[in-house]
Amino acid sequence: MDNPFFTALEKTALNDTVSLEQALEHVRFDDNGLIPAIAQQHDTGEVLMMAWMNHDALLETLQKGQVCYWSRSRQALWRKGESSGHTQKLVSLRMDCDGDTLLCLVDQTGAACHSNRKNCFYLEVKGDQLATISVPITD
Amino acid sequence: MDNPFFTALEKTALNDTVSLEQALEHVRFDDNGLIPAIAQQHDTGEVLMMAWMNHDALLETLQKGQVCYWSRSRQALWRKGESSGHTQKLVSLRMDCDGDTLLCLVDQTGAACHSNRKNCFYLEVKGDQLATISVPITD
Repeated sequence: MDNPFFTALEKTALNDTVSLEQALEHVRFDDNGLIPAIAQQHDTGEVLMMAWMNHDALLETLQKGQVCYWSRSRQALWRKGESSGHTQKLVSLRMDCDGDTLLCLVDQTGAACHSNRKNCFYLEVKGDQLATISVPITD
Repeated sequence: MDNPFFTALEKTALNDTVSLEQALEHVRFDDNGLIPAIAQQHDTGEVLMMAWMNHDALLETLQKGQVCYWSRSRQALWRKGESSGHTQKLVSLRMDCDGDTLLCLVDQTGAACHSNRKNCFYLEVKGDQLATISVPITD
């Protein structure tokens, strides 16, 4: 989707910087005020989950260094791991080329998935079947 | 978000399977008929991009083994690499625990990003700045 601020950044060189405050004004939230945020384990590359952030969740994540999403079902800030202890310490936050997706490199404590699996992507297409490829971990 | 079909799958054991056809009936597309699809390089774990699929794009991706998205700006199927040659061969397609996000493990040819960077997540928060952390590749 067209995002002139981010399009202009395509021409930047390695290590060029712009003001984060200014960039945050141009991050593209959807009609519900949300942006998809992918969580990836920083050292193994494992994609853990995808959830959503609103503006406040994104700011809190950056300020506290602990990942905070927006729960669409509860319509409230979702401080990941607040009840389960399965927190995500933010290692690095990246934005994509058109400013409408976030990638959070994190250090995950315990299981990322509410099913207690390490990550949420535990169903894999195999031919005409969908197979379970991981099971809950024991803490 | 509540998705009883996928919730029931949480109890499955390793290598249990269900019919893909049945699962596809319960995949959760949003109000625009779209589901987020993360593309990850299958062997390095690099998160390449995130885009959207509608039902037809998902079926074509599975049938042809080449990733096809839905372009929201063009409102048309987006056969990744059709014009650039930067195709994504599907290695594995996974679904998450509530059936509302896809993870495509792919073998990417050339750059995944339209800016000709290897991946789209080339902007990183560093303190109060947003820094460019990769540059276009030369094919």
